[in-house]
Amino acid sequence: MRFPVDLTLFENSPHSPSFHSLTRSMNAKGRGLRDYCIPVNPYFPTPAMFAAFRDRLEEALKFYPAQNESIALALSRVLDLDPRTLVLGNGSTELITWINLLLVKESLAIPVPTFSRWTDEPGATGKRVVLFPTFSAANFQVDIGSFVSFVRDQRARVAILCNPNNPTGAFLPKEQVLDLLKRLSNLDLVVVDESFIDFADEDGIPSVAAEATRLRNVIVLKSLGKNFGLHGVRLGYAVSNHRLASTLRDALPYWNVNALGEMLIRELPWHLDEYEKGRRQVVRDRQELWRQLGSIASLRTFPSRANFVYFSIPEPLDGVALRNHLLTEHGCLVRECGNKVGSSSRYFRVAARPAEDREYLIHALRTSLSCLHMQDAADCRAA
Amino acid sequence: MRFPVDLTLFENSPHSPSFHSLTRSMNAKGRGLRDYCIPVNPYFPTPAMFAAFRDRLEEALKFYPAQNESIALALSRVLDLDPRTLVLGNGSTELITWINLLLVKESLAIPVPTFSRWTDEPGATGKRVVLFPTFSAANFQVDIGSFVSFVRDQRARVAILCNPNNPTGAFLPKEQVLDLLKRLSNLDLVVVDESFIDFADEDGIPSVAAEATRLRNVIVLKSLGKNFGLHGVRLGYAVSNHRLASTLRDALPYWNVNALGEMLIRELPWHLDEYEKGRRQVVRDRQELWRQLGSIASLRTFPSRANFVYFSIPEPLDGVALRNHLLTEHGCLVRECGNKVGSSSRYFRVAARPAEDREYLIHALRTSLSCLHMQDAADCRAA
Repeated sequence: MRFPVDLTLFENSPHSPSFHSLTRSMNAKGRGLRDYCIPVNPYFPTPAMFAAFRDRLEEALKFYPAQNESIALALSRVLDLDPRTLVLGNGSTELITWINLLLVKESLAIPVPTFSRWTDEPGATGKRVVLFPTFSAANFQVDIGSFVSFVRDQRARVAILCNPNNPTGAFLPKEQVLDLLKRLSNLDLVVVDESFIDFADEDGIPSVAAEATRLRNVIVLKSLGKNFGLHGVRLGYAVSNHRLASTLRDALPYWNVNALGEMLIRELPWHLDEYEKGRRQVVRDRQELWRQLGSIASLRTFPSRANFVYFSIPEPLDGVALRNHLLTEHGCLVRECGNKVGSSSRYFRVAARPAEDREYLIHALRTSLSCLHMQDAADCRAA
Repeated sequence: MRFPVDLTLFENSPHSPSFHSLTRSMNAKGRGLRDYCIPVNPYFPTPAMFAAFRDRLEEALKFYPAQNESIALALSRVLDLDPRTLVLGNGSTELITWINLLLVKESLAIPVPTFSRWTDEPGATGKRVVLFPTFSAANFQVDIGSFVSFVRDQRARVAILCNPNNPTGAFLPKEQVLDLLKRLSNLDLVVVDESFIDFADEDGIPSVAAEATRLRNVIVLKSLGKNFGLHGVRLGYAVSNHRLASTLRDALPYWNVNALGEMLIRELPWHLDEYEKGRRQVVRDRQELWRQLGSIASLRTFPSRANFVYFSIPEPLDGVALRNHLLTEHGCLVRECGNKVGSSSRYFRVAARPAEDREYLIHALRTSLSCLHMQDAADCRAA
């Protein structure tokens, strides 16, 4: 092993082990690992913004952050939304937890494979989770007519749509999402999780957030950690009509946004041009990643509108062996999707990265694949 | 006004406005404000620790933090507790919210005045909150016999004790707390909020956390933000038996601790001596603050075992006028306690600060008091 990672860290979790826990398991050698598992935005915040955060870190952390409403007001100006429609969360996962607790009374329908917080958490809290399968033959696209029929047949009271979807990258255009919302207007709740929508298109962001504020039963969810490439800061928000927003806001813990999250939001208005520039570059990085993955003959790639690409490897190749080979021989951490409902270990999600990281991954993938194709793993490691 | 603060920020909140919102309201002049409202530990983290945090900020924030159990395991080694008894929260307020939601079914008894999250939140969620008054004549001490009788008479199913209490600083010795827990062992739940207990005594920390793990119905709550002087990082924990800990852990949102909180916990083992040294200095600072406040003839101070001191001003002095005078003429932000249940605007809480800040406050208090005693506020400002 060139990268002596503790592989047991992958066991017993619906998610990947944290990148830091893997690097810690290698001690000094951990520095060489490259992460393609967590889809971060590598262009934002800019180095100058990080420098400002570092300068003000102590001052920020010493005091209580402002309350939810005050920080939401600052964000609403950036997003051009009514502040009463906006609720901030300690990451979008906090909002998922509270939506599940307060608004999912009995049952929930969701296309799979998808972000596992949306399937595991309602399941663990005794809700009936009905899974709408999507298929590789259709590039994991959701046919909205079929999904509406499925929701009706299953008598689900809540529906979730991740758009673009994680991990498949499948995307529904805005007019189709609005059509779906119209046809599901009788449900208790429809959540559109738009955590990756900023990377759907170079020319504009096809969010339905503004429309959601005028609908009775819709919440649009957004993960700022994903937009900004700051998963550690824990920052997300929900957009909905005033009533649903109040229900969430009133229930959430006081001071749920930390001081760094607040600092980030208050700094945003001065950095929107830089964000836009980085966002467009991420879209181009994903397009190029998709093209290059597609050039590897043994892989099958699926169209993606997020900042990652989903692909599959052919039988009889073992996905876990490929993940481990990439990690221990090339230091590349990728998301092998064997523990996601509706996926299998032959499916992978890799993040769009800047050119140098992308070239490194493509080379590593080619080497690992030919190695695993040719011979058993022992010979491969010796090569 | 030497410090042109926007005083309307004090309106419409059960808590003080954030220090940053006050300084923002003054623009460039905000730099001169001194905060005595939020009781932070000024000696920890050390400047060297902050330097290390700054160096690793980007790396920490780019990735997901580890999950609750993994971070709790790291903290349990520092605290010498079984990791299964420990649950981490996004600040102790997150744990208060979930305890109220999951474990306070019907009613709650609590000595007042106290930390308002414990009275406002159960009240807002429809629980019956019964307030056990404590009195200035008894230095706000809780008589445990009377409290036990009160809980029984009121048929409360849950009891809360903040020890030391916030804002009064009143303290029950460990043996009395254990006696109280024994006498309330028939309740659904007893919470001992020990957020300030590290500052109770120079020689050791009289926590009942270890004992709580062996009791059926007890949770000990701790705010790491308060120990470490990092309210912005949002970090607290609960200690209890395995069953109660599981109930909380299973309900809390995934990834609820942010990357800075995780970094702080993982750094702790290497800085315990520095923490201990700072902790002892805070105890001495509080003792000296209490002595000096007591030397101002018109103030009445109350014994405190926390890192702040509670005092009252005589009639007919107006507490809001004193708060505003201290803020706008001397740049000192203090906690005027008029919006706390069981308190009034003649009561103040001020944080123990290092010598220079303390001397500045004592001088400012003497000046403001004599000014407000002598004449009307207009003359005073001109002086």
